[in-house]
Amino acid sequence: MKKVKVTITMSLDGFVAGPNQSTAEPLGLGGMELHQWLFPLKAFREGHGEEGGEVNASTAIAEEILGNDGAIVMGRNMFGGGPGPWGEEAWKGYWGDDPPYDHPVFVLTHHPREPLELQGGTTFHFVNDGIESALEQASAAAGEHDVSIGGGASVVQQYLAAGLLDEIVVSLVPVLLGAGARLFDNLGEPGPRLRQVEAIEAPGLTHIRYARA
Amino acid sequence: MKKVKVTITMSLDGFVAGPNQSTAEPLGLGGMELHQWLFPLKAFREGHGEEGGEVNASTAIAEEILGNDGAIVMGRNMFGGGPGPWGEEAWKGYWGDDPPYDHPVFVLTHHPREPLELQGGTTFHFVNDGIESALEQASAAAGEHDVSIGGGASVVQQYLAAGLLDEIVVSLVPVLLGAGARLFDNLGEPGPRLRQVEAIEAPGLTHIRYARA
Repeated sequence: MKKVKVTITMSLDGFVAGPNQSTAEPLGLGGMELHQWLFPLKAFREGHGEEGGEVNASTAIAEEILGNDGAIVMGRNMFGGGPGPWGEEAWKGYWGDDPPYDHPVFVLTHHPREPLELQGGTTFHFVNDGIESALEQASAAAGEHDVSIGGGASVVQQYLAAGLLDEIVVSLVPVLLGAGARLFDNLGEPGPRLRQVEAIEAPGLTHIRYARA
Repeated sequence: MKKVKVTITMSLDGFVAGPNQSTAEPLGLGGMELHQWLFPLKAFREGHGEEGGEVNASTAIAEEILGNDGAIVMGRNMFGGGPGPWGEEAWKGYWGDDPPYDHPVFVLTHHPREPLELQGGTTFHFVNDGIESALEQASAAAGEHDVSIGGGASVVQQYLAAGLLDEIVVSLVPVLLGAGARLFDNLGEPGPRLRQVEAIEAPGLTHIRYARA
């Protein structure tokens, strides 16, 4: 059964990015600290053409983050390049000519733009008619594979509040950022209901899988 | 080695009580939902003179909450009775004549008051010279046992920010309260550093133990 899912790392105080996000520091002040658990893993290093690395209880989650979806939806801010119309020499994303997605990516934006085909199977499609349309297009592109909602926080919130998420995996790290982009916020009243599916104790953090209740 | 610790239940969006806390609803709107995991447990029911109940992965944490400390520090708001001087017919706490603590309780308050001795070994001491004094008194009273910091959120924050907590166990429930008393907030800059000690997957929630890094 294919799913619409989010796999995201959150600080113990609830943030998925630090304050003052910018093109130079897309995860905000201190935000990179959230993802330190991922980089030493063999699963991560292999995906980036490097050898060696650790195999531990986080490996299955890293493989889920890196691998088994067929399309992803992300916000304009996660794609980057600042707000407003795209302009002549349009921003091509944070990931260079060969992004790590290797499948279609649907970018939510208010500003129309032609698809951007890069290497390795990553084509960015720009969707300006709403989150449901983006999800439909991503689902069609993903075929039998899962669809990921990549972020940022406000995009996850919109899908969660609309009841369109089947599953959310929170990788909870013992970091206190103090400020930034809060994940579980702006969810309306009454908020969505979740149930815990599993918890995985890993070195230095815990991964918890929730499903729509 | 005796410890200073907090054992507290938190919603997935970071709250330990809902909005609009009052004497009638001390945990605020929706706050009781946080603690539903505790009530069906044999360990909890026994502590309240009832028979039967469940034994599961939460039992060890419930026993920790209910049992192995020698003294507790709590805020005036957790003790209850509203702000300001104590008055003639002073509030005796939320717990009746035989509170479940069975050991000394140190209540942080700006307003002096004589100790209040109730049944079962619970004596409330009112401390108006600060959190460090309260902790020293509680530690002396606890002897070789642990000292618990009971709450509410702002009291935990003060001890955490001051570096006085050895351990904090967060019982993370998949509830979204949307508003209320946030646990990890007001912690200063840079915030305290924690490391994960263990995570326990239990039915419907996850308990995570953190220690001072």
